[in-house]
Parts: sequence; structure tokens; C-alpha cells
Amino acid sequence: MQPYELTATQASRLIAEGQLSCEELARSCLARISEREPTLRAWAYVDPDQVVRNARELDKSPPHGVLYGLTWGVKDVINTFDMPTGHNSPIYKGHFAGKDAACVAIARHCGAQIVGKTETFEFAAVGRPAITRNARNSAHSPGASSSGSAAAVGDSMVQLAFATQTGGSLIRPAAYNGIYGFKPTHGAVSNEGAKMFAPTLDTIGWYGRSVDDLALVAEAFQLSQNNEQHSLDIKGLRIGLCRGPNWSHIEASGKAALITAANLLESAGAIVEDLDLPEPFEQITQAHRVIMRGEGRVSLRNEYLQHHSKVHEELRLLVEDTSATDIPALIAARDMAAQCRGILDSLFGRSLDLVITPPAPGEAPHGLASPGTMIFNAMWTALHVPCIAIPAGVSRSGLPLGIQLVGPRGTDAALLNMARACSDIIGQDNIIG
Amino acid sequence: MQPYELTATQASRLIAEGQLSCEELARSCLARISEREPTLRAWAYVDPDQVVRNARELDKSPPHGVLYGLTWGVKDVINTFDMPTGHNSPIYKGHFAGKDAACVAIARHCGAQIVGKTETFEFAAVGRPAITRNARNSAHSPGASSSGSAAAVGDSMVQLAFATQTGGSLIRPAAYNGIYGFKPTHGAVSNEGAKMFAPTLDTIGWYGRSVDDLALVAEAFQLSQNNEQHSLDIKGLRIGLCRGPNWSHIEASGKAALITAANLLESAGAIVEDLDLPEPFEQITQAHRVIMRGEGRVSLRNEYLQHHSKVHEELRLLVEDTSATDIPALIAARDMAAQCRGILDSLFGRSLDLVITPPAPGEAPHGLASPGTMIFNAMWTALHVPCIAIPAGVSRSGLPLGIQLVGPRGTDAALLNMARACSDIIGQDNIIG
Repeated sequence: MQPYELTATQASRLIAEGQLSCEELARSCLARISEREPTLRAWAYVDPDQVVRNARELDKSPPHGVLYGLTWGVKDVINTFDMPTGHNSPIYKGHFAGKDAACVAIARHCGAQIVGKTETFEFAAVGRPAITRNARNSAHSPGASSSGSAAAVGDSMVQLAFATQTGGSLIRPAAYNGIYGFKPTHGAVSNEGAKMFAPTLDTIGWYGRSVDDLALVAEAFQLSQNNEQHSLDIKGLRIGLCRGPNWSHIEASGKAALITAANLLESAGAIVEDLDLPEPFEQITQAHRVIMRGEGRVSLRNEYLQHHSKVHEELRLLVEDTSATDIPALIAARDMAAQCRGILDSLFGRSLDLVITPPAPGEAPHGLASPGTMIFNAMWTALHVPCIAIPAGVSRSGLPLGIQLVGPRGTDAALLNMARACSDIIGQDNIIG
Repeated sequence: MQPYELTATQASRLIAEGQLSCEELARSCLARISEREPTLRAWAYVDPDQVVRNARELDKSPPHGVLYGLTWGVKDVINTFDMPTGHNSPIYKGHFAGKDAACVAIARHCGAQIVGKTETFEFAAVGRPAITRNARNSAHSPGASSSGSAAAVGDSMVQLAFATQTGGSLIRPAAYNGIYGFKPTHGAVSNEGAKMFAPTLDTIGWYGRSVDDLALVAEAFQLSQNNEQHSLDIKGLRIGLCRGPNWSHIEASGKAALITAANLLESAGAIVEDLDLPEPFEQITQAHRVIMRGEGRVSLRNEYLQHHSKVHEELRLLVEDTSATDIPALIAARDMAAQCRGILDSLFGRSLDLVITPPAPGEAPHGLASPGTMIFNAMWTALHVPCIAIPAGVSRSGLPLGIQLVGPRGTDAALLNMARACSDIIGQDNIIG
């Protein structure tokens, strides 16, 4: 096994035991990148010499921090002091931010090796798409704006990567690339130094190749303490199977993955019941859209004014959209989302430990023309709940399928424990459909 | 009259008519700063040569934008590409952010002259206080974290300044320094590039020396169009006089200012009635505190981890505060604030055009030991409503007193029009008490 193939948790152990150096791990990842990047195009910026220099510095210092030595990709809408942050926008080509975003600074403080910046959609929004391809089959889309991070982790170029979600940009690419993705409770990780799009929705999270990997990072962000992490008995776990208000968009493979997972969990002793969301949730996908567009308009106003012709037409139209200036609608949408948060809490409180729901309609779309739809993610983003994507099998065409786990706001540590237990039961390799 | 004495609106007119150049205005402001800064200590950074160079560049270009030539202070927690952003923290001493905050970039796009960075409390939070003194009486406090911006505008060092409010840091210093302050609806102005403290509360706004000045800037941020600005008949305006849940903190001068203003508005034909807020509002000040501390803990985690000893003890304690880790309380506080927003909307919708309420307990405290309390501001910040402080007279000891005007979320333009009408009637010079 080459070092690049190790999960974060495995690599961490070998480094702690002195069996692997930061430089060895970095070089192995760089070799993997060098081999696979021409096909996958996951990276906006990597300077191999810089990575090796930093790795040697790390090797000189005693191991420190839960992320010591682990290799990271950073979505290129998140600032790094030593690498340009381009936002996939001609406006920011080669731009140096002068300071790490808070999440990057915290990761480095905990010993992380930042390998480079990963491809994104323009401003993690719409507009210029990423040029990245799916880690499992380069003829397919890697998903939306966190494409580069998801493909890089999916292809074992790095162990971990930061991503962001405003609609479905973190969870959907995790499912498409066969990896684990964690969107924490909104507000639990500082967004400082990441490009904002819709602050009511924008959430920074990360990818890994196991639930333990996700939990390791959660420790760095104090979302989960090491002593809170434990294996959990699936028996008696009350799971709500939530098709949600947009079930008509489900595809056969996505449906099969969800039902197969539910059956496996039930066989293992979980109590799986259908969760029907009450009436207000019929409107929440639309409320999400109103918030995203209304706030996106404010967030991109600066770029629009100063660099009009360099902003993608789709984003120009967003800033100009007069329906998006409908402030009462924006306020009503925010209030509506807040109301639904309370309703969801009471559903959890009464009878539920965990919700399982699709992370995407199905497998990754063919070609790069469309990254798929956020229809199964938008609602949860607006609800501010922690979401985890875990692999749940492979479609007949060999593409990964996932499921999404959702818990109540602020219970990130508990959700990670449930995800670990579920993942152990569901496995990654079943052929679905 | 010296150019520095002009309001933004007056200066704008003279510049447009070719009677005043950007350089003349800049030099006049710089002379004022040079004369008064040793007493007031409003500035964290001013480079006079840089200011004059930029003014000459502006004079070379044809007048453009609604802020063309107007002089600005920028609170030193808001990034500027050409001046350091120090946050009143030893960690960021001399730090260059590499890029303007969105609000600064938009102001420059509209022709603003950025004169320098104004003193702030550490991270616009608690911790290291500003060294600034009150513009009207240097033996008194200028208020809390936007001290430098408020004193600079109050002392006519610049015409306009950016400020931020998380608790009461924008509105209270406006009242203490005898100026006009505008905190827009939360989310209407991008916070990108400003230090975050509690994103659910953090709001960027500005100071001026007339309501027209505030409205000029609102135009640059598309909160109010020129064609929406008009004089409004006070007759029949339905005004709620809101003492609020914290009225026990009012001082004699603050009470007298509010009642005098109410009487003047009533005499002018407004319908002024007491506004009693329903029961949930009894808890909202505490909810604000829980949000501010719970989110502040996340926002300062990076600085705490990396530069532990350089973070003020008060902020270290905040990050360490285990009660602040009470996530369910934080979530309940956020939901509670959201609920109150809806209730307030319905109060406005039924029977109110405008609320008047204290911007501070009374006049500015003597000495610099305490900047006063946010007790009359915190609630409105959590409610996301637009707030305007206008001068409402002078205390017997010669210190300025103000009132605070509040409208429903998203009605920033209408609130500015009402503030203009109220300010015309109330005046600035009455001796109160």
C-alpha cells in the first residue's frame, strides 16, 4: 500500500508511530497528483516544491495536533496566505489574500499539510464551472462547486479537503465521488476568509475517506471530542427514512441505494420508519432558493460593480434580477426557514435519532454539461442541520452511490457516531439496483 | 466655513459644481485631523501623503459615483488593501489584508476617499478598548467599539465613516458623539472582509452628519434609490414610543431626550403611542447575549489557538467559557430571536410606521473606564431591523443626546425618509432636562 492510499486516520497512526514521515506522505500524494491530475483536473494550484519544504518543516517539529502531517486540499474560494485564491474567476486570478481563512489557520495549527487549492465553480456559486472530472469515472461529473476537493479525496490525491455548501455543493459531490462528506451545523465553523455567497446558508465542511477521518477534523474544530467518539449499537436506533418534498426527482439508482441502506439498517436492529415532513416543508426548497439568490445578490455586488465584464453572465443576471430585489420575499423566506428549524427539532425530540435521505438524485451525471441538482440538499442547508454523506454502494455502471444522514442542529458529535455505525453496516461495495 | 466642516451632502454638491476639489477637501480634513488627533485619538492609521496622492488621482478622473470625493474613516476591523488592518490587536499589528472589504471596495467604486483606519475595541468585541475620546468633550467616553469612527465624524475630521454593530457599537457612539448613525437591515450590506464576531448579529453601517449623508451612502449600497428619497409629512405618522424591556436602565437625560422628541413629533402631527412589546421580548436581551458569546467563541477560536497570549484575557475567557459551549442554549436563543422578528413585523404591519426608543441610557459616561452599556441596542441588533440614531438635543452638561428610530426589516429607504422628517422637527440644539 502506498502512503497516498491511507485514510487520514491510518496515516495519522503511522506518523505517530514514527513509521511514516510527513515528507514521505507528501511526496506520495504529489506523485499521485502528478499521475492523475491530467485526467481529473482537480487542482487550481499546487506547488510541489512548497509542499515538500513545508513537509520537511513539519518533520522537524514534534508531532502536534490531531491533523499532524495529514494532507489537505482547500477549495479555491477559501483564503490561504501562501497560495493564490482564485475563486475560478478571472477577477481573482493569482490573487493572494494575505491571510489564511480561519478554517485553514486552525487546520495548520493542528498540524495539517496544505497541498494546494482545489477547483471550484466561480465563487462557489453558479457561473464558470469547474473543469474537474469524477474520481471514479472521468466521463462523469464530480458534482457541483466543491468538485476539486471531492475528486482529490476520491482519487486519493490527498486525505482530506475543505469544501463549502450553500445549496448542495458539499454533500452531493461526496456521493458522486464515493467519499465521506461532513457539513457541520451552520455557524459551528467560522466562515471568515471564505468567499461568501449566501451567509444564511454558507457552511464550511470537509471530505475524508472514512467516518473516522471526518471525526478527526471535527476534533480540531471542537465539534467532537476524542472521548465522545465511540462505536454505537445500531440496535434500537430510531431512524426516519425521509423522501422529502422533492422525491419526484429521485432516480432508480438513488432510490435503490436509500432503500437498500434502510433495509440493511433495519436488519441490524434499527427501527426505520417513514418520516413525512409536515406542510411547511413543502415550501422550504423554494425558500432556500429565494435566500440564496437574494443574499447572493448582496455578496457579489462588489465584483459586479468593479469588474462587470469579468463576472459570468449567470452571476450578472443574478445581481440584476429584480425578482431577487423582492426584499419582503427574502425576509419571509428567512423566517420560514427559521420556523421549519423549530419544527424539525420537535420531530427529532419526539421520536427520532437520525434521518436518512438521498444526497443526490442518483449516480453522477454523464459528461460535464450538468453537475446535477441540489434538490435533495437545499432544504437541509437552509435548516442548518449537520449532514453527512456516506458511500452506500455502487451502481450497475460502476458509479458510487451514497446516502445522507441528518441529525438535529448542534449534535455534530452524535451524528458522527451514528454515521460510523451506519457505515459499518451498509458498506461501500454492494452493487445497487 | 472650512471644507472639513461640510456635511457629505454639502461637500458633494460643491464638488459636483466644481467649487471644491477632492484634494482641497482632503487637505482640509487632514489639517483638522492634525489639529485634533492629539486630543481625540480617533485614528489607528492615517498616511497624509497617501491621502493627498489619492485625492489628486480622483481629481484627474471625471466625477463618478454618489460618494465622489467624500472623505471616509474605516473602522479598523474592516479590511483595506492599501492600509494595515490592526483590529486593535497585537496579533494584527501592521497586517495588510491584501484586498478591500466589500463595503470599502463599493465605497471606492462610488468615488469615496478613504482617509484612514479608525480606532476600535479589540476585534470590535470586548478586550482592549479604543483610546479614543468623545468628540464633544474629551473627558467623556465616545461609546464602544466604533469609537474612532464616531469621534472622527463627530469632530468633522471626515464626513463619513464605516462602523459595525454586534451589540450596540454603532448606534450608541452616534448618540454619544452627536452624529447620525445608520445600522441597515442585517444582511443588506455584505460583511465580507470585516472581522466577524457573531455573524447572526454583525452588521456594517455608517456615520454622517445629517440624514441626507446617511441616505447618500445607502444609495451606493442600493438600500435607497435617489428617487425614493423625499421629504415626508410627519402628520399622521404612527409612532410607537418603545421603552422596551430594559427601561430600568434609563437615565434622566436619556429619558428626557426621548420624551421631548416624542412631544415635538406629536406637536407636529404624529400619532405617538406607547408600544408595549409582548412577553417573548422579555427574554430577547438575554438571547442576544447567548448568541453573541456562543458565536464569538467560534469566531475567535483561530486567534485563541494561534496567539493565545496576545488575545485579551476577556476574550480568552470568552473562548474558554463552558457555558458558552451550551449549544442547545445557543440554538434556542437564535430561534427565539427569529420568533421575535416575526412578532415585531406583525406589530409594525398592524398599526405602526416607526418606533422611537433610546440609543443609550443617557449622555456619554465620564472618563474612559466604561463605554456605557449596549442594553438599549442589543435587542434591535438581534431583531435585524434597520436602526438610525439621530441627535435630539444637548444635556445640561453640554453633552449630546440622541434618539433611535427603528423600522421593519428591509424598509431601510422608508426609515431614512422618516428619520429626515423627524430630525427636521426635533433639531439638535434643544437643552434637554
